Amino acid sequence: MTWQQRRDLEAMLLKEAHEPEPLPIEQLRERFAAMMAGFPAPADVRGTPTELGGRPALRVEPEGEPRAGAILYLHGGSWVLGSPATGFVNTANLVTRTRVAAISLDYRLAPEHPFPAAIEDCLAAYRALLDAGTDPATIVFAGDSAGGGLSVSTSLAARAAGLPQPAAIVAFSPGVDLTRAGASMVTRQDRDPYFTRDGFGHTTAMYLGGQDPAQPLLSPAVYADLTGLPPMLLQVGTNELLLDDAVRLAARAAEADVDVILDVTAGVPHVFQSFGPALDEAGRALDRAALFITQHLGVSAAR
Amino acid sequence: MTWQQRRDLEAMLLKEAHEPEPLPIEQLRERFAAMMAGFPAPADVRGTPTELGGRPALRVEPEGEPRAGAILYLHGGSWVLGSPATGFVNTANLVTRTRVAAISLDYRLAPEHPFPAAIEDCLAAYRALLDAGTDPATIVFAGDSAGGGLSVSTSLAARAAGLPQPAAIVAFSPGVDLTRAGASMVTRQDRDPYFTRDGFGHTTAMYLGGQDPAQPLLSPAVYADLTGLPPMLLQVGTNELLLDDAVRLAARAAEADVDVILDVTAGVPHVFQSFGPALDEAGRALDRAALFITQHLGVSAAR
Repeated sequence: MTWQQRRDLEAMLLKEAHEPEPLPIEQLRERFAAMMAGFPAPADVRGTPTELGGRPALRVEPEGEPRAGAILYLHGGSWVLGSPATGFVNTANLVTRTRVAAISLDYRLAPEHPFPAAIEDCLAAYRALLDAGTDPATIVFAGDSAGGGLSVSTSLAARAAGLPQPAAIVAFSPGVDLTRAGASMVTRQDRDPYFTRDGFGHTTAMYLGGQDPAQPLLSPAVYADLTGLPPMLLQVGTNELLLDDAVRLAARAAEADVDVILDVTAGVPHVFQSFGPALDEAGRALDRAALFITQHLGVSAAR
Repeated sequence: MTWQQRRDLEAMLLKEAHEPEPLPIEQLRERFAAMMAGFPAPADVRGTPTELGGRPALRVEPEGEPRAGAILYLHGGSWVLGSPATGFVNTANLVTRTRVAAISLDYRLAPEHPFPAAIEDCLAAYRALLDAGTDPATIVFAGDSAGGGLSVSTSLAARAAGLPQPAAIVAFSPGVDLTRAGASMVTRQDRDPYFTRDGFGHTTAMYLGGQDPAQPLLSPAVYADLTGLPPMLLQVGTNELLLDDAVRLAARAAEADVDVILDVTAGVPHVFQSFGPALDEAGRALDRAALFITQHLGVSAAR
């Protein structure tokens, strides 16, 4: 019945018509928070406010003794919305399946703080973990949407800063091309239930703040030298404007001799993993992500 | 130590210099059989000769009670070499990890039997499984190299014949473009320890028997409409002329709304899964393949 689930989900989402005009940022943030609060989070995971690298954060822990390792989680929201609270469902889904604790970062958002503020915060958080003595071979960067993009860009920024790479990257529907050059920006525009090209233009302009998107930290799928990045898992749906962001990042990672898994689920929307029990594919994708994380935790990335 | 393993493996393989001139087919077959016999097979799997769809086959079963389902295994060997015996290591590695029994088909080989003889045999084997009452939702096509290509082509042939699709396809380093148009045919020519472009030309000519490679069943990564194919897992190494066969097939599958996983391991050669305990990545890739198979067994492909 799994294709029926996919179609039911799409029909439900498409009932929410896109706004003809961009809403004020505060209204967008409230709406996003309300939407994400509607997704079912696993019950056996607890969140505790904390701080990391000078920014607020949420520690997300499994019940009982956690497995060794740390997931640095970077929430989605087009670089202008969201918080560890909106990212809680996705963070908790990974924590409950891996039994690895996560720390979800409240990085700075645009338009108040355009590029590269978010990446600076993510890098500072990673540096704080390393400074506290955490072995990079036990750290996984994970994120969804904009946060998936940040997980890649933060790895690039860590490389540039001479820091070691984390053990792995897990990115759900990552945004990794702010030039918006992917073919799916056109081919999927009538099927993406969340995004429109105009909507992307609106939020991207806030994050760019007038800067050129054609640079590695903003469009790593196109402009970054990916050499030396850690193993990457990229999960994406085919009902997404962002489909080709993941497809192109995977192809370039393979070309650059990076271990990479491009994991495409057909007929599902952006960050479909959030749907949990309503969609069999969500649980299956999360199980694959959990296997990937546990396979790479503790394995030295040294070459 | 895993990157050290990868480099040791490559150094070992590259000691086997490529032949300056093509060897006679019987000598190639003997050499291939000797090489494959050198890979370590799991001890807890047994093979029993049988027959399927009019061809010899090998039933490969786990110890104890098998899980429901059937893997139709298609061995590698450039469509001119190999048998269920040479494919035993790869078949057995999947069987021991999934606890699902496999049947490995001794399809006809070129040059004695050029295209489409092998695909006819694979389709007849699949039809025989269906005629015996096997639910297609419990059948997985799996194969390596040429056999990975056959797993895709047989699914296309099944669709054309009006048969239902199997539950899933697992292809290790599939050969899915006999026009040899992938960029990796050039970019990886100094790093592939098994294949040369000239060697491919020699074996491909035998399989084609003068026929045009630019057609869907010979080059599905380029010429096939992949719509309606079952979930596919494509595993490939980056030290392969065939890297881009898998990369391009995955991109086109995603475009055609097929569930697809492109699973790339850097710095390893063609069908690296065979190396078993000598290479950590082999076991990890097989564990991912086993999860993929068990996730899809018994799930209806009905749309």
